[in-house]
Amino acid sequence: MTTTDQLISKENLLKHWQGHRFLTRRVIEAFPEKDFFEFSIGGMRPFSALTSELLSIAVPALKSIAENNTQPYTEEGFIFKTKEEYLKKWDEATEEINSYWAQIPEEDFNNVFNLFNQYEFPIINNIFYFIDNEIHHRGQGYVYLRALNIEPPFFWERW
Amino acid sequence: MTTTDQLISKENLLKHWQGHRFLTRRVIEAFPEKDFFEFSIGGMRPFSALTSELLSIAVPALKSIAENNTQPYTEEGFIFKTKEEYLKKWDEATEEINSYWAQIPEEDFNNVFNLFNQYEFPIINNIFYFIDNEIHHRGQGYVYLRALNIEPPFFWERW
Repeated sequence: MTTTDQLISKENLLKHWQGHRFLTRRVIEAFPEKDFFEFSIGGMRPFSALTSELLSIAVPALKSIAENNTQPYTEEGFIFKTKEEYLKKWDEATEEINSYWAQIPEEDFNNVFNLFNQYEFPIINNIFYFIDNEIHHRGQGYVYLRALNIEPPFFWERW
Repeated sequence: MTTTDQLISKENLLKHWQGHRFLTRRVIEAFPEKDFFEFSIGGMRPFSALTSELLSIAVPALKSIAENNTQPYTEEGFIFKTKEEYLKKWDEATEEINSYWAQIPEEDFNNVFNLFNQYEFPIINNIFYFIDNEIHHRGQGYVYLRALNIEPPFFWERW
């Protein structure tokens, strides 16, 4: 099967996700240091906690899929005290995602996988969940920024 | 090419989108009538206006792709005065999306299309944009609901 036969190719799906991750990085950057850790609306988590969640999913999930293990979900190792540390981890994750992505064969994407020993779905569904969950929480971050009177980056600027 | 060769099949991508649309419908339902039209944070649009945008994209965009026209974007015909009218239009759109989706051949999804005479991208990228834009704005709606002290539906419940 050639790439052009695909509705979306494995390569383009990675590009799509990394484009979203680039935008999320800009949203992290847009927060004032204090508000990144403290600002919230309606009892929701501050954007730092949402970022910890996104980091706790992306690389650990892909690693589990690539290595066929069912390690449980944990945010251990993904909670930091400064924006700078979050951004550094974000950039490390960018590289690791590329690397684990390359290790998952295209023909495996429709295989059912028990992610985090909890979410038993086809790999492709799990991957869409990572992306959608990121868009969802980032949308939350947009409202936080607007409420702080800060102009968020354009939603369609992914590079 | 068989469905199982696809990273994601045309059929499953539609199911994915309609699952998101089902969730968005539940978010619309969760708003009190008045707040659906009036509540906002940080100068952003109320959820009714976001719903008008989503309706103005989904069916008109798919219709344009299916019929190969480049009609400009307009919200005319998608602005209503009651939640009930929005929900009725939403349900009509659900059926129309299914119908136009069926008219777009799978092999066309990677063709470049000048959507709304403005967004010249492969059809698949435009479709991901519709879905992502809906998730993004719905995430905004979740914050509105939380700020109104209303529990939003679970993000992962799509049916």
